[in-house]
Amino acid sequence: MDGVTLHPHHDGSPLHVSTRHPALGDRVTVRLRVPTGAAPIARALVRSNPDHEPVWAEASRDGDADGWEWWSAVITVANPRHGYRWQLIFADGTTGTLTQGGFTHLEALDAVDFALVAGNAPPAWLDHAVMYQVFPDRFARSAAADTRPIPDWAIPVGWDTPLDPLPPGRSGQFYGGDLDGIVDRLDHIQDLGFTIVYHTPIFPARSNHRYDASSFDRVDPLLGGDEAYLRLIDAVHERGLHIMGDLTSNHSGDAHEWFQAAFRHPGAPESAFYYFRDAAQTEYESWLGVPSLPKFNWNSTELRRRFIEGSDSVVAKWLAEPYRADGWRIDVANMTGRLGAEDLNAQVRQTLRRTMVETNPDTLLLAESTNDAASDIQGDAWHGAMTYPAFTRGIWAWLSEPTADAWFFGIPTGMPRYTAREFVDQLQRFTSQVPWRVRLGCMQPLDTHDTARFATHAAAGTVPLAVGLAMTLPGLPVVFAGDEFGLTGVDGEMSRTPIPWDRIDEPEIAARIALYRGLIGLRHRFDALRTGGLRWLHVDDETIVFVRESADDAVLVLASRGDVDLELPAPLVLGAAAAVSVFGAATLGTADDGAVLLSAEGPVFAAWSLPGVVAPAATAAATPATV
Amino acid sequence: MDGVTLHPHHDGSPLHVSTRHPALGDRVTVRLRVPTGAAPIARALVRSNPDHEPVWAEASRDGDADGWEWWSAVITVANPRHGYRWQLIFADGTTGTLTQGGFTHLEALDAVDFALVAGNAPPAWLDHAVMYQVFPDRFARSAAADTRPIPDWAIPVGWDTPLDPLPPGRSGQFYGGDLDGIVDRLDHIQDLGFTIVYHTPIFPARSNHRYDASSFDRVDPLLGGDEAYLRLIDAVHERGLHIMGDLTSNHSGDAHEWFQAAFRHPGAPESAFYYFRDAAQTEYESWLGVPSLPKFNWNSTELRRRFIEGSDSVVAKWLAEPYRADGWRIDVANMTGRLGAEDLNAQVRQTLRRTMVETNPDTLLLAESTNDAASDIQGDAWHGAMTYPAFTRGIWAWLSEPTADAWFFGIPTGMPRYTAREFVDQLQRFTSQVPWRVRLGCMQPLDTHDTARFATHAAAGTVPLAVGLAMTLPGLPVVFAGDEFGLTGVDGEMSRTPIPWDRIDEPEIAARIALYRGLIGLRHRFDALRTGGLRWLHVDDETIVFVRESADDAVLVLASRGDVDLELPAPLVLGAAAAVSVFGAATLGTADDGAVLLSAEGPVFAAWSLPGVVAPAATAAATPATV
Repeated sequence: MDGVTLHPHHDGSPLHVSTRHPALGDRVTVRLRVPTGAAPIARALVRSNPDHEPVWAEASRDGDADGWEWWSAVITVANPRHGYRWQLIFADGTTGTLTQGGFTHLEALDAVDFALVAGNAPPAWLDHAVMYQVFPDRFARSAAADTRPIPDWAIPVGWDTPLDPLPPGRSGQFYGGDLDGIVDRLDHIQDLGFTIVYHTPIFPARSNHRYDASSFDRVDPLLGGDEAYLRLIDAVHERGLHIMGDLTSNHSGDAHEWFQAAFRHPGAPESAFYYFRDAAQTEYESWLGVPSLPKFNWNSTELRRRFIEGSDSVVAKWLAEPYRADGWRIDVANMTGRLGAEDLNAQVRQTLRRTMVETNPDTLLLAESTNDAASDIQGDAWHGAMTYPAFTRGIWAWLSEPTADAWFFGIPTGMPRYTAREFVDQLQRFTSQVPWRVRLGCMQPLDTHDTARFATHAAAGTVPLAVGLAMTLPGLPVVFAGDEFGLTGVDGEMSRTPIPWDRIDEPEIAARIALYRGLIGLRHRFDALRTGGLRWLHVDDETIVFVRESADDAVLVLASRGDVDLELPAPLVLGAAAAVSVFGAATLGTADDGAVLLSAEGPVFAAWSLPGVVAPAATAAATPATV
Repeated sequence: MDGVTLHPHHDGSPLHVSTRHPALGDRVTVRLRVPTGAAPIARALVRSNPDHEPVWAEASRDGDADGWEWWSAVITVANPRHGYRWQLIFADGTTGTLTQGGFTHLEALDAVDFALVAGNAPPAWLDHAVMYQVFPDRFARSAAADTRPIPDWAIPVGWDTPLDPLPPGRSGQFYGGDLDGIVDRLDHIQDLGFTIVYHTPIFPARSNHRYDASSFDRVDPLLGGDEAYLRLIDAVHERGLHIMGDLTSNHSGDAHEWFQAAFRHPGAPESAFYYFRDAAQTEYESWLGVPSLPKFNWNSTELRRRFIEGSDSVVAKWLAEPYRADGWRIDVANMTGRLGAEDLNAQVRQTLRRTMVETNPDTLLLAESTNDAASDIQGDAWHGAMTYPAFTRGIWAWLSEPTADAWFFGIPTGMPRYTAREFVDQLQRFTSQVPWRVRLGCMQPLDTHDTARFATHAAAGTVPLAVGLAMTLPGLPVVFAGDEFGLTGVDGEMSRTPIPWDRIDEPEIAARIALYRGLIGLRHRFDALRTGGLRWLHVDDETIVFVRESADDAVLVLASRGDVDLELPAPLVLGAAAAVSVFGAATLGTADDGAVLLSAEGPVFAAWSLPGVVAPAATAAATPATV
């Protein structure tokens, strides 16, 4: 990432693409804009790559607005993932290519093409979504929680009991949060501005995390059972919010009714649901070799029928009447259907999504894929991913004060230290191979139930930066319940702290909650933050400045660990004279030549509203280029 | 690409990987080496990504040899493409990652991992291969050629007639080269050092290029028919050479017996072989909309059976007795099986290769994929690709003197101008997502029957550079017949010039042939050039220096458009004191501190032999890392 960029700009936002949701065969207008001061362009073309063979469309020069020159071209969507790139001839005869990988004078890899996705559109409510992640056992107890019998695996503890990192307490400590407890706290959730309640598994299991389901057919009675889930969904929907469940498509628990039917029972119909290694069906593949989590064998059509395919499947059941949940987050989606020479992942995810569409197309499907998810999230099924390298790990590496042995996402080489520039470089790298529409569906967590809490190692004063960036960069913001209380936790076990509801009015906690409310509020206030484009204006070792832009509004964002004293060339910031501070303590002024001056004491997160971007009408017709 | 690199090194060559041809489940030792002067390494790990979930192996420090420190680790091959990377902790606590994408302090994309490929090994003779491409109509006429009747589509012309770039001459001009003509010239082919004769299609057709086959079941009688092909194959094999055919899996000609059976014949068994759009079967999909090239519909199992699957298929027939051809180059492999929402490409290529293995596993399968081939060449079927961006277009952009309207591979923005550094950057970029083993199978042409001839625009004195690099960089060298005569041609039509055999003794042509013979000879002389590793030693705007290394020998290569006066740090060049010039006019000396001094007048291509690389014994056991 260079410092200031005066390159031509394109991204997948409405200013630049006539639709994010085309069908195959649709004509889509794509637009390029060129700032004053950038190298003049003599000719622009758009390369598509239908069926893996390049074709070229001629772009038209549309005219200028606010000092920016606009070009447009019409492309015809040929494949479900339709990659395209801008190919530019400058007035001096040199050429260049603009892709999601940036601007290059060389050729670009197909994988970094801009990409439209035809079909499988996410629900419209994704555009407005801010997600709240709830870990049911640790979120809130309803009055009924005390009345339930305790199962043999559980070690019941009081709400204030410290977490035990070691087995059997690790997965056995039972705090007794339940679904009616969530209902009781919907005021809190809605007040902060969250629009999706995403809860980790609620099916019966033999652990507090419930990723070892013993059935997918009923809600754990310890959580209140099916009736409580219905009450929760109704209450969520009454508020105009959405709710998403969590499903393990890679494995079940060894106590699962399907596994129990198959284990040591050769000939059982469920035998083919798992990878048994011996005729007696006693040995089997499991998740990372953990015997309590036997791996599903997706070659089984009966498994598909029961679990993911058709209206009688698990996937359909909880999205259909009477439950009407709004989507699924799929656990270990990256490994699902993959084992050695076998890779059924695309079949499984596409079948799963097809069933969701048949049940209720207005649903969201997200994949856990904690490392590089790009190969799986080209838009055919998953609307986005819970993935860590693009945003989460970069934010940690930039804004943490790591101790020598700080947990870092299970990576044994520990926590690296990034500059702001490196944070942006990593973000660019890990989003460069993801279609823009899918990028908007990718979760942008600071932490989850599987990680340490971000606040644990955050450098002084950097929490507003991290939360602010989660809310203002393209992607789906998500907050793991408890972060807004300032909770800490040194790893994915110790972060599953019960929410300290009785401390909610303590000044420090109230302030932290207000910070979250304010930053989430930005997202709701500006169209540009939800679906607008992204242009980097400045990146150095300490500071990043970018703008999100739409036709309705725009937001300039400044984030820095250190003090700020910056001058941005006037053409980069449209409408700077009308800037209005909407968050943070920083100063925006203008120099005599129109340059934009930013100054602040760091660490700082600040945002200004700007007018929406005005563009001349697009003039492009569908014109094949002369080759 | 930085100038001089003192980073740790790894690649897929035998010095660094215990086998290029593992089976699933095999343990493979991978090795890292670190030059004197590079940042000291405290701990090294190798990340694999089985079933898309990272696992880590601890590396052992093996010791030093010739001033280089070696590390080794053992990984277990989990998937058909097994990606892995080096994760390093330096003595100063910083970390870094080494992949095919280079060294980075950030995280690397999975796509640029080093990669082993399990199964589907190419034939052993690929390691020793230098390919010669023959376009039969233009290569050589046997005595029998005059006796054959001329078909209706052909415009017979004399061997010295200028090419006609316009229809009908374009594909109709018939020079009458034939297969016995190739037999007559095998002395020439073998004398230059070629080991594979790859010929473009020889099936009956209605054009001189024969990519519009009317049958796959017999050799065109105009070329001498089946008997002539058998004579050619026998003659090639008697010399210990190999021969490869050319098959159009994307389309046939509209005169093809299958298409003729289906066209306007609803109900014909061949109806499903093509994409007819109307019930009367008069309209159909074709290659880039060219009606004479109807596109195959690979959903048809009968098409698969006749063409690519099983011992009765076309694919098998020509590899089996009595013909025993040694492999196939597949035309338009990139588009094969792809149309809109449908993508059967992987099925087709895997089926095709399976049939080849069942017929004769000692065969080679290459895919035409003229742009970014990375997504298709991960090793499951194609052993390599005929692809242009990695090597060919970069060489052109670096070494040509482009005129304003120079043809450039159909890219309408014309020929870019690259520095040497940009040539290397593009080569690195387009090989970074290809497993090393597949990279060795990727054709490295300066031109083909589909391009202009390289010599047409080559800057003065640069042909030796270009040919030298084709022979010394990792990949399969290939020469389009006629290049060794110094032929030119401004595009893919005009490059199909008849070979001027009667001028072979002209001094300029004889010298050009000698140049090719000498550079091909280098490839045969040094193990390192065939299968050795690749380390870049120096790259600037005019000059590149690299070394290919094996345990047996090593070759230092210098290529520059300009004059050279360079000093390389001693640790980068192992055994410089024993260097022996093996090609080109350049001087290699050593400074008092051991630094290697290179000087030459440009343009220059020069090579020196060096001793093989000595490594301490690998000490790694299969050790999971402590996380």
